[in-house]
Amino acid sequence: MKTIRVGIVGGRGYVGGELLRLLLFHPRVEVTCVTSRRSAGEYVYREHPNLRKLTSLKFEDVNLSRIGDKCDVVFTAVPHGAAMDIVYECYEMGLRVIDLSADYRLKNPEDYKYWYGFEHKHPDLLEKSVYGLPELHRNEIRNARIVANPGCMACAAILALYPLLRELEVDRSRIVVDCKEGSSAGGAEVSRATHHPERSNVVRPYKVTEHRHTAEIEQELSAATGAPVRIAMSAHAVDMVRGILATCHVFLEEELDDERVLWKIYRKYYADEPFIRIVKEKRGISRLPDPKFVVGTNFCDVGFEYEKRTSRVVALAAVDNLMKGAAGQAVQNFNIMCGIEETCGLMYPGLHPI
Amino acid sequence: MKTIRVGIVGGRGYVGGELLRLLLFHPRVEVTCVTSRRSAGEYVYREHPNLRKLTSLKFEDVNLSRIGDKCDVVFTAVPHGAAMDIVYECYEMGLRVIDLSADYRLKNPEDYKYWYGFEHKHPDLLEKSVYGLPELHRNEIRNARIVANPGCMACAAILALYPLLRELEVDRSRIVVDCKEGSSAGGAEVSRATHHPERSNVVRPYKVTEHRHTAEIEQELSAATGAPVRIAMSAHAVDMVRGILATCHVFLEEELDDERVLWKIYRKYYADEPFIRIVKEKRGISRLPDPKFVVGTNFCDVGFEYEKRTSRVVALAAVDNLMKGAAGQAVQNFNIMCGIEETCGLMYPGLHPI
Amino acid sequence: MKTIRVGIVGGRGYVGGELLRLLLFHPRVEVTCVTSRRSAGEYVYREHPNLRKLTSLKFEDVNLSRIGDKCDVVFTAVPHGAAMDIVYECYEMGLRVIDLSADYRLKNPEDYKYWYGFEHKHPDLLEKSVYGLPELHRNEIRNARIVANPGCMACAAILALYPLLRELEVDRSRIVVDCKEGSSAGGAEVSRATHHPERSNVVRPYKVTEHRHTAEIEQELSAATGAPVRIAMSAHAVDMVRGILATCHVFLEEELDDERVLWKIYRKYYADEPFIRIVKEKRGISRLPDPKFVVGTNFCDVGFEYEKRTSRVVALAAVDNLMKGAAGQAVQNFNIMCGIEETCGLMYPGLHPI
Amino acid sequence: MKTIRVGIVGGRGYVGGELLRLLLFHPRVEVTCVTSRRSAGEYVYREHPNLRKLTSLKFEDVNLSRIGDKCDVVFTAVPHGAAMDIVYECYEMGLRVIDLSADYRLKNPEDYKYWYGFEHKHPDLLEKSVYGLPELHRNEIRNARIVANPGCMACAAILALYPLLRELEVDRSRIVVDCKEGSSAGGAEVSRATHHPERSNVVRPYKVTEHRHTAEIEQELSAATGAPVRIAMSAHAVDMVRGILATCHVFLEEELDDERVLWKIYRKYYADEPFIRIVKEKRGISRLPDPKFVVGTNFCDVGFEYEKRTSRVVALAAVDNLMKGAAGQAVQNFNIMCGIEETCGLMYPGLHPI
Repeated sequence: MKTIRVGIVGGRGYVGGELLRLLLFHPRVEVTCVTSRRSAGEYVYREHPNLRKLTSLKFEDVNLSRIGDKCDVVFTAVPHGAAMDIVYECYEMGLRVIDLSADYRLKNPEDYKYWYGFEHKHPDLLEKSVYGLPELHRNEIRNARIVANPGCMACAAILALYPLLRELEVDRSRIVVDCKEGSSAGGAEVSRATHHPERSNVVRPYKVTEHRHTAEIEQELSAATGAPVRIAMSAHAVDMVRGILATCHVFLEEELDDERVLWKIYRKYYADEPFIRIVKEKRGISRLPDPKFVVGTNFCDVGFEYEKRTSRVVALAAVDNLMKGAAGQAVQNFNIMCGIEETCGLMYPGLHPI
Repeated sequence: MKTIRVGIVGGRGYVGGELLRLLLFHPRVEVTCVTSRRSAGEYVYREHPNLRKLTSLKFEDVNLSRIGDKCDVVFTAVPHGAAMDIVYECYEMGLRVIDLSADYRLKNPEDYKYWYGFEHKHPDLLEKSVYGLPELHRNEIRNARIVANPGCMACAAILALYPLLRELEVDRSRIVVDCKEGSSAGGAEVSRATHHPERSNVVRPYKVTEHRHTAEIEQELSAATGAPVRIAMSAHAVDMVRGILATCHVFLEEELDDERVLWKIYRKYYADEPFIRIVKEKRGISRLPDPKFVVGTNFCDVGFEYEKRTSRVVALAAVDNLMKGAAGQAVQNFNIMCGIEETCGLMYPGLHPI
Repeated sequence: MKTIRVGIVGGRGYVGGELLRLLLFHPRVEVTCVTSRRSAGEYVYREHPNLRKLTSLKFEDVNLSRIGDKCDVVFTAVPHGAAMDIVYECYEMGLRVIDLSADYRLKNPEDYKYWYGFEHKHPDLLEKSVYGLPELHRNEIRNARIVANPGCMACAAILALYPLLRELEVDRSRIVVDCKEGSSAGGAEVSRATHHPERSNVVRPYKVTEHRHTAEIEQELSAATGAPVRIAMSAHAVDMVRGILATCHVFLEEELDDERVLWKIYRKYYADEPFIRIVKEKRGISRLPDPKFVVGTNFCDVGFEYEKRTSRVVALAAVDNLMKGAAGQAVQNFNIMCGIEETCGLMYPGLHPI
Repeated sequence: MKTIRVGIVGGRGYVGGELLRLLLFHPRVEVTCVTSRRSAGEYVYREHPNLRKLTSLKFEDVNLSRIGDKCDVVFTAVPHGAAMDIVYECYEMGLRVIDLSADYRLKNPEDYKYWYGFEHKHPDLLEKSVYGLPELHRNEIRNARIVANPGCMACAAILALYPLLRELEVDRSRIVVDCKEGSSAGGAEVSRATHHPERSNVVRPYKVTEHRHTAEIEQELSAATGAPVRIAMSAHAVDMVRGILATCHVFLEEELDDERVLWKIYRKYYADEPFIRIVKEKRGISRLPDPKFVVGTNFCDVGFEYEKRTSRVVALAAVDNLMKGAAGQAVQNFNIMCGIEETCGLMYPGLHPI
């Protein structure tokens, strides 16, 4: 089988490092290039000490035409705004691109003004890009030239809500998505807010209204369920490094006889999904999704409970923000795009305890 | 000024220990008795090592008639169900009681069947007891014979929501209270779920429907605002020892011109409250309530944000579950009951960083 | 290539779970049996939720003759004392055994009385067992019938000290080994000491003299370096789940010209070792061994510094106590015993950040 | 009683904040001035959110002559090197100064070249300053014009070792001091090394040789015990915010009959010390010193164990690096200097659990 040559633009951050971890050990991949302006010439293990003794790869400065020569597929892991042109140029060179920024996730160029405060420079490419959530768009991903990898919280929220909104009558304007996330989701840049003495022991509400991931959640769930959805989202920083839990509170317009209805709904959509586990137990140490149990893995654990008193379903999803929430998802998309077994290079089981 | 003799029934747990910490240093108090069946005869510092070198007090076995002789006021910090008779007997002996269990919080005896699964043995006492939230019931607390100290999450949720529900038209059947809490809220009893390797790095949804504190939140907010309120509550265990954050999502029936309306509302109710701080800043390391900044203190930090898109107010409250959520609140109630300056023995400023 | 049938006796604890994680995905292994008295009949993923959706294996009750039928190699992961007879019986049935308890580590039966307080029941087997540290005993491990897997702290301390004691004149009676370890090293049994509120935020000295691992460190280093060694060991519990750092303070009898001498010494012994990395950098975020960077991996990171003022070498080693300190080491030994590539099933790179 | 006017130079950092916390509530003190170049004009609670609602004090720019007018005593909490001139000028203005930097701790100007790499500009002042450890220098502190507050690790190490070196024959050239410390000890300045994802879950050896606090430990213990002492010190960053544990390994030249000898020795020196607790229990959750139990307090918990096999005493001391290791110590010194009850404003008992 042919080895696929891949490049990583923006390899210094946490997402870039996670891509390296996965792709260096992927049996079908050769990483031919990883870029970092700031660390060009440096061994990658200096930024990602987990790779010490495992690779002699070095960071290169960004040179897109060289990347065009050396790569079949490019992963872009640069900040929002910075990816816009890079993806465009790679696309123009005929490369296939998996973009881990938000720059190609939204279909409506106007949304970039509202949510990100910039004018999109390549609005025509937006419709060509595919939102890279295999559970919703597997078929389109196969042939996509540009895959826009979902935001970490969006990924969790959509996967928690999708079956529910497809199958039940719910109050679509009062869906609450209350997220809790670890510090790695904020990236590798230091600030007072991420200084260990300040960032420890917090439950810090940091974006309780107007969270940008709202845009993609509403876009995807509205499209997938055939009717507009409004998401009331809030995010909190908690004291852990990796992981996201999305707690979604959904009010039903109908009464359920039984929680088993929910089991049936979730099984219908996810029973065959390789990276979704339904977690709902009556005993034991893991009864509902918890990011603790997905650290380092590509799993999205999904669970739910029904409260008749309030006509509410609480739908929960846990992901590792760097894996199913970013790099793992990207590799899953890569496998689909390249016709490789979808789980290839991704079946790491996680650690217990951690 | 006369010293008041107090007893603590159930001094071995974390709430009992916190009561000791506060009452041993309270200038108007003499702790004449602290009980623990399991640790009778043992120095209290063995269970509460922070008190080492600070007291030679020992635990006694429970003997209510001796308590009647030695105490003017009794704090009961025993499990739900176990307090029912103890409070009754103390009451019959003419003592004033501050009960930190749930046994006297609910007014309707039926509620105990639904939420706690037991028949209340002294239903006539329920109407005599006062719900010990000074911000709502200060005047009744003054002369109360029995004060039922609020549940830790209930305290946070009620204080976050109260001004809002008093002053604005909201959807009273779709109020979401999403709580995050530290491990000390689970008490001192060990289990697999609280074993450090299992309890670390979690965001564990542990009571996402039918949380018992719902009952008192609905009771108090319905009564205080003159109309029934339905609360959709969920709780999560996070990796910290002390603290609770209640994130309350409230959908308005009206549109606000401006967030300043909310400022005005919260100031109206809380500007003069000694233990409530409104936390809402545009910059700095502490912009909204975060339990990190109330650890060890009796403060309840309250904040809010308005999202016009979803007609939503996010109201937040942070407390230390052992302080304003339990022992600190109890001492505040005690001060009110005894005509002492309300802040006496409670003005500890907290630590930064912690 | 032939699949090797393995059994795990004592699969419910953390070491047992880690063995499962490794062996279920080991390309040459079939796990035919995993026992647990307490959880017999239960799916293994209920105790080890990281394995959910990855195996339908169930725990069985312990039945050694059945194990004899179904297994070629047995891993015993039961408490000290309990392994003694199980290993003996497996040995008598002709199985090869890798024992993760301390029961076959010490050569001198007297040592069991002093350090463990019991009389060894099969002292003749002690000389037949091989101490399973490949860096010292690779050749003997190949043909061993019984491999005694090292203690987690012993593994770190020996690997830090071995090259130094082989090559330099040191004060052999004043070697200090100061260890710091995570909570998973204490196992899955709950107690007040491991209760999350008590076990968080600690630097708890818990075995500052007479630590049992001293016995095997002294035994191995004395034998390997041809002269008796006395180890002054102390252990501390710190607030993390996985990992051990051994800080070894060694006073030299000679003066070094230069730290490069140490580089040379460590490279001599470890340059070709697949699971030892020398970590010693002048810049970057990982300059000396730190358990953070070996979590989930089979690496032992080793580093050192020389202080001329005090004629001291500080030798450091970091391992994941469940991996190179237990299950990973056991699988490395298994690979050697079975003539499989030594790194097979073990080349997981770890996570950054974590 | 007269109120003492105090100023804090360098009030923005963690030590400055802790001084504010203590001095604002000190019954004999008025804080007339707190400086910060970077935050001049800003409310102090913005940097120290624990002080919100408790003070309307603002930071001022540094103006020493104004400080001279407004203050009787000045606390300097600025970086090493920066304090040198400020202390000198305050001294020249006739103020009494408590300096929390290292600039006046060492008696021998040469030591500043070796350990800190600078030439001291006011070497004549060094002999006028008193090393501010009350347990060793209480009488000199009473009349001191300049008190040099000890380094946090030095404080712990000296208090652990002092009685031992006074009373027993030990190997004075092979004393190992192995320290573990929380992130607040590194101060409020951000860096990659203190970024939460990098600083979490570490046991990071960060200064394993040539730690600067060695200088003051050797100076003080040599002077106090009448013979030169050589300290082999190593420091490690662990995952907690506040606290230091110093584990001191001391080899005896004589054999002890019994550990009770050590009890006697430690009691002789510390039984009457208000802020030293001897922690040595056979059972319970706190058997030896652990920083967990001194967080927020001015206690130094001291403990010990004797290991006959290695002729070793392990002496342990735990402090909160911002309290007995810095600001609390400074206020204790202040109380002594001003003839105030030594424990005034400092008898906070700490929290359990935390």
